[in-house]
Amino acid sequence: VDSRSLWLYRWYYSRIYQWGLGAVIALILALAFIEKPSSLTATSDPRYKLPHWEPPCGLTESIEMVCFMVFALDLTLKIYLIGWDEFRKNKWLIGYMVVLAGSVIDWTLSLSMFCEEHLRIRRLLRPFFLLQNSSLMKKTLKCIKRTLPEIASVILLLALHLCLFTMFGMLLFSKGEDPEKNEEWRIYFRNFPQSLTSLLVLLTTANNPDVMIPAYSLNRGYSIFFILFSGFGTYFLMNLLTAIIYNQFRGYLLMSVQTSILRRRLGIRAAFEVLCSSAQGASCSAENETGVKVETVLQVMRLVQMKSYYRRAVVTKAQQLSGGSITREAFQILFDELDKDRIEEHPPLPEYSSPFLQKLQFIFSHYYVTVVGNLIALANMLCICVLLLVESDKPVSERDDYVFEVVNCFFIVLYLLEMLLKIFAFGWRGYVSYRNNIFDGLMTIILLVLQISIFATYKYPYPHWLSLWEMVRLVNMLIIFRFLRVIPTIKLMSLVASTLVDLVKNLRAFAGILVVVYYIFAVLGIWLFEGAIPAPGNASLITNSSTANFSMECGTYEQLGYWPNNFDDFASTLVLLYNIMVVNNWQVFIDAYSRYTTRWSMLYFVSWWLTSSVMWVNLFVALILESFIYKWDRSHTSSASEMENTRLQT
Amino acid sequence: VDSRSLWLYRWYYSRIYQWGLGAVIALILALAFIEKPSSLTATSDPRYKLPHWEPPCGLTESIEMVCFMVFALDLTLKIYLIGWDEFRKNKWLIGYMVVLAGSVIDWTLSLSMFCEEHLRIRRLLRPFFLLQNSSLMKKTLKCIKRTLPEIASVILLLALHLCLFTMFGMLLFSKGEDPEKNEEWRIYFRNFPQSLTSLLVLLTTANNPDVMIPAYSLNRGYSIFFILFSGFGTYFLMNLLTAIIYNQFRGYLLMSVQTSILRRRLGIRAAFEVLCSSAQGASCSAENETGVKVETVLQVMRLVQMKSYYRRAVVTKAQQLSGGSITREAFQILFDELDKDRIEEHPPLPEYSSPFLQKLQFIFSHYYVTVVGNLIALANMLCICVLLLVESDKPVSERDDYVFEVVNCFFIVLYLLEMLLKIFAFGWRGYVSYRNNIFDGLMTIILLVLQISIFATYKYPYPHWLSLWEMVRLVNMLIIFRFLRVIPTIKLMSLVASTLVDLVKNLRAFAGILVVVYYIFAVLGIWLFEGAIPAPGNASLITNSSTANFSMECGTYEQLGYWPNNFDDFASTLVLLYNIMVVNNWQVFIDAYSRYTTRWSMLYFVSWWLTSSVMWVNLFVALILESFIYKWDRSHTSSASEMENTRLQT
Repeated sequence: VDSRSLWLYRWYYSRIYQWGLGAVIALILALAFIEKPSSLTATSDPRYKLPHWEPPCGLTESIEMVCFMVFALDLTLKIYLIGWDEFRKNKWLIGYMVVLAGSVIDWTLSLSMFCEEHLRIRRLLRPFFLLQNSSLMKKTLKCIKRTLPEIASVILLLALHLCLFTMFGMLLFSKGEDPEKNEEWRIYFRNFPQSLTSLLVLLTTANNPDVMIPAYSLNRGYSIFFILFSGFGTYFLMNLLTAIIYNQFRGYLLMSVQTSILRRRLGIRAAFEVLCSSAQGASCSAENETGVKVETVLQVMRLVQMKSYYRRAVVTKAQQLSGGSITREAFQILFDELDKDRIEEHPPLPEYSSPFLQKLQFIFSHYYVTVVGNLIALANMLCICVLLLVESDKPVSERDDYVFEVVNCFFIVLYLLEMLLKIFAFGWRGYVSYRNNIFDGLMTIILLVLQISIFATYKYPYPHWLSLWEMVRLVNMLIIFRFLRVIPTIKLMSLVASTLVDLVKNLRAFAGILVVVYYIFAVLGIWLFEGAIPAPGNASLITNSSTANFSMECGTYEQLGYWPNNFDDFASTLVLLYNIMVVNNWQVFIDAYSRYTTRWSMLYFVSWWLTSSVMWVNLFVALILESFIYKWDRSHTSSASEMENTRLQT
Repeated sequence: VDSRSLWLYRWYYSRIYQWGLGAVIALILALAFIEKPSSLTATSDPRYKLPHWEPPCGLTESIEMVCFMVFALDLTLKIYLIGWDEFRKNKWLIGYMVVLAGSVIDWTLSLSMFCEEHLRIRRLLRPFFLLQNSSLMKKTLKCIKRTLPEIASVILLLALHLCLFTMFGMLLFSKGEDPEKNEEWRIYFRNFPQSLTSLLVLLTTANNPDVMIPAYSLNRGYSIFFILFSGFGTYFLMNLLTAIIYNQFRGYLLMSVQTSILRRRLGIRAAFEVLCSSAQGASCSAENETGVKVETVLQVMRLVQMKSYYRRAVVTKAQQLSGGSITREAFQILFDELDKDRIEEHPPLPEYSSPFLQKLQFIFSHYYVTVVGNLIALANMLCICVLLLVESDKPVSERDDYVFEVVNCFFIVLYLLEMLLKIFAFGWRGYVSYRNNIFDGLMTIILLVLQISIFATYKYPYPHWLSLWEMVRLVNMLIIFRFLRVIPTIKLMSLVASTLVDLVKNLRAFAGILVVVYYIFAVLGIWLFEGAIPAPGNASLITNSSTANFSMECGTYEQLGYWPNNFDDFASTLVLLYNIMVVNNWQVFIDAYSRYTTRWSMLYFVSWWLTSSVMWVNLFVALILESFIYKWDRSHTSSASEMENTRLQT
């Protein structure tokens, strides 16, 4: 290890480099929005879509090339750092190289065809860069891979359940003599694929009462078949899947926390050894317990990158140690400070000389002032609510904006007053040291500016860059947003909010994998189904009779007006995929795409359903369960240990 | 405690008495099906419903009176057994008395009005008898009650989320100048109640793509509002509710198992003391360790009611003990046998003298015979599947039943052969000792009988009590059912199946509470909405213009033909409530009932949604998680302890 390599290593893992790399990855992923078919239109509805700007050939490609060059640099750096022998063992790095090479080849092909090619393989490969760059994501992926066999077996069970019930259903609802009694057969159980689809959709409950209606109209007894099917399939097997996934992820957070603590311990121990040996010129065996000098530690501490709060804590603790040297145990204990949560300190209240001001300060620094502030925000909300209730039926032009304006002004003045009084009571630094106050103050200032600009523009008749109503609307929305500051004051809500914050932290890896999955399916979907559904104006041109019959039947894609949900550009594809993930009415999409393309398009939708709704949503539920229970246990054990501490002290 | 009280006590807790009481409770609950409005019609569809039999006044009432008398007897017995002082402290028993008295008063009122009264309060009170009789249900209810505050706070959070987004939505989608851009306002955000309903339904994802379509058609950006709303509400808050409920129920099973083991230990200890003191005429203090004579224990064992398998195990273990008396520790250990799972013992194979028969026996008692049997069942399934695929489009009369018949006969003969060979190999007693075999054999015999009856009736032209197709259909369904015997042979499936069996055991209390909730809501629903929706033939009579406008609009109750889902009798009400529990398309019911009755009917549906879909389904998920994880942990710890045992032994 020479100093050049060390410098490179430091630079590679520096925050700037990693952020830069992340930005480049985000850039190359975001290219999908402006590449052909670009998403730069106001709407994705083919009925209203105007001809829009498409990037000229070479624009996105040149950006892409820059990204590839950055990746190539990154790869060479990595290979240089870990060495050639290690590289050959690392599958991810080899994959990185292969993907990069493939992308560059595809890029040259694409340029040589003047960007006219239909299929761009490199778009499919892009998410790999995201995966490769995050070690957390790789770990999560490993964890998911470990769960896959069990998930697969439950899905097998689901498939068996589905098949058995399909056969039952086909025997039960076969075509009889009486055409009136054949409704169920005609609509849902005409043949094997149709029956299978009906019951698969029923498994997601998306066609729940509909599928049983024709048979149930004839005889109550038929409902038992459907209730048994969805009771066992939806309620039991699907939730069992959740249980299995959760069971695998149980302890995932705890384990990762433990691992990181273990690693830190190891690192501290190693640091001690290094300091020790460099000071004495010999190895620090367990026998000579001389340890490291305090000054050396303090010197090192000044060079280490860490949060200033923690640095201060460690330094003060090191200075308290008596004796010139620190033993191994003391060194370990020194860094236990890092495990402790940061306790926020607020600057002291400013001191006023006049007794009147002191009294005022006492009043306005009291806790109840915050409560009154919250009550004012609540009252404001209620006012907006009542005004909306009264005025909802009128069009914007007829609305009495005057009342809105007066109410808004009144409350904004109140907010301003609250802010000023608080600044007076706590002092400027004290006011800013609360995060709540920063949020409040910022919102109040924005509201004030908006209000002043309303007054300013209201004087002159025209042209307004926004109508008055729009401005008032914006103000009201901001007030609603400001109301959120109430949340931390309610105990349970603060627990929920902190769970949410924790979740977002832990979710990064999952969200990354979600992005990867969405990206791949979206690119595939665009490739397979782009422009498959023609705009309704052109629909009459198509002579396919079955399509014409369906055109306005209830519950179809056309009748429901699902036009903007299509695969014509990247953004609308994402929304479409989201809608299928939510599952409700997904049979409409299956039906529409199997009519306009082939029946095999169903495979795409079912596989997306399996990946997103079955796999990912369950993973998400498992993660929520895990974080909530981890948080709950920690808060309870910490409160229990605190109680024990107090008991020991007394 | 005199012997008469003891006898009464024993009799009260005897199996016969408890079963009888359970049957009476089931009877009084089942009365709702035949009481006016009775459910004794083939269909609940008002379009096809024929005038049907209503029970004469006094029939159900007299059955009810008999039940009440049984309950009164039960109550007096209970009061006698626990004594008056205890009774006054027991709220459940006082409630029992009050409910019984109220029911009898309501009953006399009802008879005095010649059964013409509209509201029967005693129907609402009936589920109380079910609750009162089960200690497990009372315990679960207590557990749920403990969870309620946290659930309520999350629901509060949901309500806040809903309100904030409703106000945002109303500001965002207010009525503008351009009528074309007002679609979103017109359909979903016209006024406050409508906006709230739209977003409440979106929270359940039941109107997912529809609600965003008009706005999304205009601009992609609007989709962000809806995605944020359901992302946070549906995915985060709803799953947080699951997490909270699961967190409360975590360890519920383990605790109840531990409690029951503790109780048993206590009982055994008490039994030892009693035996000891009755034998020696003095208290068995810890000092004199003489213990109880073995003969006394054996004598008592003969009188105790317990499963014969366990009795045998305990008796043989007691006989093995050397010395005439058993100490306290040994007595405790004696009954540890009860904790062990029963290991099934099969009678020995019959011995044949001829070497040829012995060889045959060896072959057919082999494990592979079962595998071959399973393969045959699979082949049969595939045959039915293929035939159904081929013939699904033909009506029943044109179907080639001959092929079906031949295939069925062939496989039934195979099944019969398998059964006979197994009986030959294992002997009759050995064959019956496997539960799988009993299932197989029973199915085979039923299939055989059906097949023979098909042949018998097929000869004579008419009248068949069932058409040939119906018979063949029945046979095929039974074959599919028989196929289920494959399940225990696949490892994961047997785990899932055993989880299911365990779940059913643990679910009893939950199912009881579900029955109570369904019953109360169904009775309320019938009372509130009976006959609210007229049959479509009469719909034209109604001059309500708004109804006429809606009559065939897509997605309405009328267009979807949800007629059989109504509150006109108890059975259809149950199905309707189930459909709302499943949640999909529940807005159709809300819409229909608020059109035909008042807007306040929404309260009923929303409260049912909260109780069933939010509360109960989450409880069910928590229970599944709990049982699966309990099972998983137990199977892992037991396998780990077994491994330890073997390690210690070697």
